[in-house]
Amino acid sequence: MKSRITFIGLGNMGIGMAQNLINAGYKINVYNRTAAKTQELTGDFEQFQTVIEATEDADIIITMLSDDDALKEVATSKTGFLQIMKKDAIHIGMSTISPETSRELYELHHEKETHYVTAPVFGRPNAAATAKLFICTSGNKLIKEKIKPILEVLSQGVYDFGEEPGAANVVKLAGNFMIMASMETMAEAFTLAEKQGLDREKVAEFFGETVFNAPIYKNYGSLIAKKQYKPVGFKAKLGFKDARLATKMALDVKMPAPLLSLVYNRLMSALANGKGDNDWVEGISGGVSNDAGI
Amino acid sequence: MKSRITFIGLGNMGIGMAQNLINAGYKINVYNRTAAKTQELTGDFEQFQTVIEATEDADIIITMLSDDDALKEVATSKTGFLQIMKKDAIHIGMSTISPETSRELYELHHEKETHYVTAPVFGRPNAAATAKLFICTSGNKLIKEKIKPILEVLSQGVYDFGEEPGAANVVKLAGNFMIMASMETMAEAFTLAEKQGLDREKVAEFFGETVFNAPIYKNYGSLIAKKQYKPVGFKAKLGFKDARLATKMALDVKMPAPLLSLVYNRLMSALANGKGDNDWVEGISGGVSNDAGI
Amino acid sequence: MKSRITFIGLGNMGIGMAQNLINAGYKINVYNRTAAKTQELTGDFEQFQTVIEATEDADIIITMLSDDDALKEVATSKTGFLQIMKKDAIHIGMSTISPETSRELYELHHEKETHYVTAPVFGRPNAAATAKLFICTSGNKLIKEKIKPILEVLSQGVYDFGEEPGAANVVKLAGNFMIMASMETMAEAFTLAEKQGLDREKVAEFFGETVFNAPIYKNYGSLIAKKQYKPVGFKAKLGFKDARLATKMALDVKMPAPLLSLVYNRLMSALANGKGDNDWVEGISGGVSNDAGI
Amino acid sequence: MKSRITFIGLGNMGIGMAQNLINAGYKINVYNRTAAKTQELTGDFEQFQTVIEATEDADIIITMLSDDDALKEVATSKTGFLQIMKKDAIHIGMSTISPETSRELYELHHEKETHYVTAPVFGRPNAAATAKLFICTSGNKLIKEKIKPILEVLSQGVYDFGEEPGAANVVKLAGNFMIMASMETMAEAFTLAEKQGLDREKVAEFFGETVFNAPIYKNYGSLIAKKQYKPVGFKAKLGFKDARLATKMALDVKMPAPLLSLVYNRLMSALANGKGDNDWVEGISGGVSNDAGI
Repeated sequence: MKSRITFIGLGNMGIGMAQNLINAGYKINVYNRTAAKTQELTGDFEQFQTVIEATEDADIIITMLSDDDALKEVATSKTGFLQIMKKDAIHIGMSTISPETSRELYELHHEKETHYVTAPVFGRPNAAATAKLFICTSGNKLIKEKIKPILEVLSQGVYDFGEEPGAANVVKLAGNFMIMASMETMAEAFTLAEKQGLDREKVAEFFGETVFNAPIYKNYGSLIAKKQYKPVGFKAKLGFKDARLATKMALDVKMPAPLLSLVYNRLMSALANGKGDNDWVEGISGGVSNDAGI
Repeated sequence: MKSRITFIGLGNMGIGMAQNLINAGYKINVYNRTAAKTQELTGDFEQFQTVIEATEDADIIITMLSDDDALKEVATSKTGFLQIMKKDAIHIGMSTISPETSRELYELHHEKETHYVTAPVFGRPNAAATAKLFICTSGNKLIKEKIKPILEVLSQGVYDFGEEPGAANVVKLAGNFMIMASMETMAEAFTLAEKQGLDREKVAEFFGETVFNAPIYKNYGSLIAKKQYKPVGFKAKLGFKDARLATKMALDVKMPAPLLSLVYNRLMSALANGKGDNDWVEGISGGVSNDAGI
Repeated sequence: MKSRITFIGLGNMGIGMAQNLINAGYKINVYNRTAAKTQELTGDFEQFQTVIEATEDADIIITMLSDDDALKEVATSKTGFLQIMKKDAIHIGMSTISPETSRELYELHHEKETHYVTAPVFGRPNAAATAKLFICTSGNKLIKEKIKPILEVLSQGVYDFGEEPGAANVVKLAGNFMIMASMETMAEAFTLAEKQGLDREKVAEFFGETVFNAPIYKNYGSLIAKKQYKPVGFKAKLGFKDARLATKMALDVKMPAPLLSLVYNRLMSALANGKGDNDWVEGISGGVSNDAGI
Repeated sequence: MKSRITFIGLGNMGIGMAQNLINAGYKINVYNRTAAKTQELTGDFEQFQTVIEATEDADIIITMLSDDDALKEVATSKTGFLQIMKKDAIHIGMSTISPETSRELYELHHEKETHYVTAPVFGRPNAAATAKLFICTSGNKLIKEKIKPILEVLSQGVYDFGEEPGAANVVKLAGNFMIMASMETMAEAFTLAEKQGLDREKVAEFFGETVFNAPIYKNYGSLIAKKQYKPVGFKAKLGFKDARLATKMALDVKMPAPLLSLVYNRLMSALANGKGDNDWVEGISGGVSNDAGI
């Protein structure tokens, strides 16, 4: 019999993930702060008005929320599920949060005889919808084995980083830093080419087809080359949140990272200029353009 | 009948390229400042002691040299070939040089009723040897058509950037900047992960197999993760030369590029510390490690 | 009759300040975590073993501690003085801490019907000893008037920044950032001059006597020019703490500050390389020298 | 009998300097590209239409021009004075130029048996008018002694940096970098304070009166605090020229200077945004404000 899964957080990412679990035949309960979002789901699922109701009797709880605070609200606050979880139930934390929060959650679950596994994802909403995410995991080995079938339903690949609960978050934040750095790289290169009289789209295509033929360079490269900042795929303020978490993580281990500081300031400037709800591509590429006067 | 080609510059890259032309049945003359290098070539070719002798009667002259000065020496100096080229002969400039030098050469050739086509390459020495280079071109359309078969012998793809002679150099220098920026990106990300207790090789593998699965990230990523700086593939001082040329190019069009400044300073520091002959990966990745105290 | 003052924190700075209050005829109680330090004081004072004993019946409590945590320990922890302060007694916070902590303390004091005034200082230990500090204040106007005579005993000038409790901390942290930025400025300028063949001490003297004839440039300029990093006047780790607090303060109001990021990374690198207990001048100037290979 | 001096370059700075020489009783010839400027001079002087006429029979030639090219035009071009200078006549180069150009001029003069002394100045136009400049010198010792009385007429202090002709230029460019860095420092500090709710003018006043009580911090500090960018005292494009020369000078000796790169990019961005003719204070301080969204 398949486990009963509660899925908390039906944002742009969560909605596709939850749907894939339904499609795979899991019985799922869902909870979202704004209930309307669940109307996008089809098939067999149950919706609840409170976290407590949604998580009672769950074998597995998946959280896919926007930040550390949102996660703590549903997990460890007075109205959170930690207090009522069944013994040996498993919480899979898939949000992009700090390793510190995962380490704390791991301890709290341990005390309650429940389990916490860290499993953040790489991919945009369409990758979530088509089960093409990449998932990084860290935590207790046996528990990770148990949930593997679930993660495989959601992804094209699961990569493990050991038992330390925060490790997968480190990889996720390092990766988001790398994406921002790639955007800065492309924005500077394409803008320089443009100012030298070249067609920036042609330049982007060349690199995306040759030495930089990775999804990040192809997809973001096209958006940056075209200065196409809509529709908003990922908000600048969420990107900045990740730059901030990566900066905090660097501070904790005394890691000077000037390129991280550069993209951190770049996105912070977007927020300071009222563009926090615009796409993070605009936050970075638009900043480079402004500096260059074009 | 195939054209008679003179190939000037048998360095790590040139040697493989010349060999591929020989293998394809071209009659080639070669010239290299240090004649010993030609001993690595096999098959049918002629070696000359001076540029003038090597280029007399050539239909095509290919230059693959280390910098602008070396190119000017063989092309436009008193002992250079420009003065004795046949009318309508073609000079293919494949070195990594400034767009400015290409623009000047184009004009000088034009005055002499000879031709200049810009055709810098992307790829490491083994890509040159296996004809897996990517080539960017710019210059007169008809001339580019004429030399296309030659470039196809050397590469897995030829990408054109129009008639402006410097355009292909802009792409090449922008690309080398992008490679340096990627190395800084990876070095900061992997070092941060390492200081957080993760295995940097595992982190590099993950990114190289997923969102950053491009040659640059796979190949350099592995070197950076392993801190494997030998054998020297491309010297830090040559990398710095390119950072310097890109910086000059940015200056010419008033393009503020803070990430370019960052890698420029990073490599200049390697040179200042006596590491100019070490690999450029060490120049960048070693600098990040030093700052991080590991 | 003069108020009874309790002075908490007899570090390099506090010792001189406490002595000046004794010399001015104030009755003072002192408390320091490591009691030995008080042996440097002369004249009429009383020493206590606990914070509570030291602060009972005090009209005025002055805190001069190394950071936010040390201050919270003596003020708001279970063994702190907040719980036993007399109604209307005044706490003068002179440590270099975050504006946030001052805002919190202000509220907590307000609830207890006691008072908190923010009064951080500029100056090295010898300025503390000779009452040549500059003091910035913020907080309730009437309370600031009341304590003015005390601050005047300690300083050559008191500058007010209004009623918002955190304001004086903002000025102090901004000022410490400016000092670090000046050190980076001088280190780069003098090292550039040195590499160009000039005598860096002569260059430092010139600027210190002419366009930059301010104490910061004269004093730090001489140390930087001579690469004289001992004795340790202010530890790199304390400097980094201030860079960190300034960075946090910038984050809170979304202020991109690339030069702040530069000195933050510079000092963090010193810490990462095991030089946290060396002078902050070495942290910055030594870093510039290392990058320059001299 | 006083030497006959030819003064070339009656810009904002030169006009005051020439007037001071007239006032001191020197017989002076003047030449300026746009003759109208000389109408601002009063007293005994002669104006010429060409450089050659203006410099014939001169014992001393002073040049005070905007850049290296302008200087070469009047000195070493076909219409320049080098060809007609009297044996043992002295050229005092007071412009802000590269050390390289001074080294070249020194050699050229030496070959012609004339002399070149480097003597750039620090100070704004009103300091030039009131003879309050600071002058740095380098070059042949005996020649420097000879011209000392002239330099004393123009300044409040003459500082020597030895016999190497480029040395004084190194100091001048290092100094201009330091001024730009100070502006970035103040702009970041004051903007941070403003965003934290403080009055930036009050903050500027505090620092200008206390730990940073140097002319640079007082004068520029007031302009930056008030965001008062008019009238234009020194154009952003001239400031950028100096950042560019300092960057070139750093490149020549392999000196990584990240803060120099920062202000270089800051001013280049002002130029890229069409603000090259605005004040350099706006170039830097306005850039910081834009990034901060205020």
